[in-house]
Amino acid sequence: MVFYLIGLGLASPSDITLAGQKALQSCSSIYLESYTSILPSTTPESLAAFHNLPLSSIIPAHRETVELESDQILQKAKEGENVALLVVGDPFGATTHTDILLRARKSGIPTRVIHNASIMNACSASGMQLYTFGQTVSLVFFTETWRPTSFYDRLVENASIGLHTLLLLDIKVREQSEENMARGRLIYEPPRFMDIPTAIQQLIWTEGERKGGILVPEETLAVGLSQVGAGENEKIVAGTLKELSEADPSVFGEPLHSLVLVGKRLHPLEVEYAESFALNKDNWRRVAQEVYKVVLDEN
Amino acid sequence: MVFYLIGLGLASPSDITLAGQKALQSCSSIYLESYTSILPSTTPESLAAFHNLPLSSIIPAHRETVELESDQILQKAKEGENVALLVVGDPFGATTHTDILLRARKSGIPTRVIHNASIMNACSASGMQLYTFGQTVSLVFFTETWRPTSFYDRLVENASIGLHTLLLLDIKVREQSEENMARGRLIYEPPRFMDIPTAIQQLIWTEGERKGGILVPEETLAVGLSQVGAGENEKIVAGTLKELSEADPSVFGEPLHSLVLVGKRLHPLEVEYAESFALNKDNWRRVAQEVYKVVLDEN
Repeated sequence: MVFYLIGLGLASPSDITLAGQKALQSCSSIYLESYTSILPSTTPESLAAFHNLPLSSIIPAHRETVELESDQILQKAKEGENVALLVVGDPFGATTHTDILLRARKSGIPTRVIHNASIMNACSASGMQLYTFGQTVSLVFFTETWRPTSFYDRLVENASIGLHTLLLLDIKVREQSEENMARGRLIYEPPRFMDIPTAIQQLIWTEGERKGGILVPEETLAVGLSQVGAGENEKIVAGTLKELSEADPSVFGEPLHSLVLVGKRLHPLEVEYAESFALNKDNWRRVAQEVYKVVLDEN
Repeated sequence: MVFYLIGLGLASPSDITLAGQKALQSCSSIYLESYTSILPSTTPESLAAFHNLPLSSIIPAHRETVELESDQILQKAKEGENVALLVVGDPFGATTHTDILLRARKSGIPTRVIHNASIMNACSASGMQLYTFGQTVSLVFFTETWRPTSFYDRLVENASIGLHTLLLLDIKVREQSEENMARGRLIYEPPRFMDIPTAIQQLIWTEGERKGGILVPEETLAVGLSQVGAGENEKIVAGTLKELSEADPSVFGEPLHSLVLVGKRLHPLEVEYAESFALNKDNWRRVAQEVYKVVLDEN
């Protein structure tokens, strides 16, 4: 029958679209993707209860499931079932999902994509206009021995034309402790989500290595986003990198976090809108005027 | 009570989220924004019928309504009503909507934004990865006497770092004929939507003026999108600018149209995915290889 690729949207089970819910309720197998992103509130149990689905129809799908068992997933659709792959945000956020769609098409299986909001457009909740964002950049957790800085080149490119940058912060799922790995026990650590302070530390460290002068703690403005779209739980915090790095981590709220680096083409309306999120409103305006050369009304 | 800013999503009334529908049904005044974008299928009548709302609660909101009467709109929320402003796509697509939100906050009115998919993230249906898009560019209808080409600078910037560009095509609503305007009759022409062939003509004309060498009819790849998210009515067509400009206009489907210009950082997976949309698959692959220097598997 049909292979559905359905976006779950930003935060809660009620963020799916009506069309998405209807499709979901027509499916006998529902794969819940849980490696490119995770919504802490969305588990097989909460989905089943919220949408009135049999729990047995919901299958957690890790990377191996989606990448290695895509033929089996699609086979079910070929045999007459409706099958869904549920993805946090919008289904086209990650390459993996275009790959399974391509395979479905090649097998002649009807496909339907149900779009939703993703952080890639909802990052405009920062007050920065979507039109002025450059390419999106992913930050991975640094370790003692692995600190890849190639993302910095992308930041330099965006900065060279004055654009904002959305930084997507790493998620680690299904990590094994060294002991469990050594003993071959498939016991996984709880997921880890990179938070805004860690992201900023890594940015400042990288600037120290690469020295492009694009990330200056006292002069570079940024907006931290947490749980965008989650109503009361959404937190948006604006400031210089220094202010954000020194803030009490609790101001940033719970994961998922992301971070917007403000580009030099900052507009007065953006300054004004994000000012209400600023840790220090006076300094936010001062840096916008003195460093970013934004002309603001003084009243 | 609450001022809601609610995204309608991409195409049909069922593209609203469950949270959006619930909010909508709690509102006594619902403003349907109809100037930054329009969904041909979404009228006050279709919305009222679909969501089981009294037709009298839905108020079409033109530019003047939202920009000049925002205080009255917000006053209702202040006096204890729930009020919604409904916007095609995601609410943060246009600056106007951040402006009304800012005013609401300044008046101490609780606000809630309900995000949705917009063309700014659903453009990934083109097969081009969202990560590799640069800034978004709007194309306005050229007239005999007004052909602004400043947008070309933005295309040059994106091209300079190899990024894809989403082009949003103009919509004209509430235009008056010269006769009606001369007679002071408030009779408006039907909305006009820029289509993909017109956009490409304007691009090629602009290249002729500006001569940056970034838009070469036989060598620049693009993907035309129409009614993204509308299921059967969605059309995606890929090719060189020349192929797209010479195609039978009916292949592009009904409005809304938009256009993705493919950047030089084109990835083999993107070539492969979009190949299924290509007017001429062989030429699509040839240009990807010879002009964009993408290394493709030959099988």
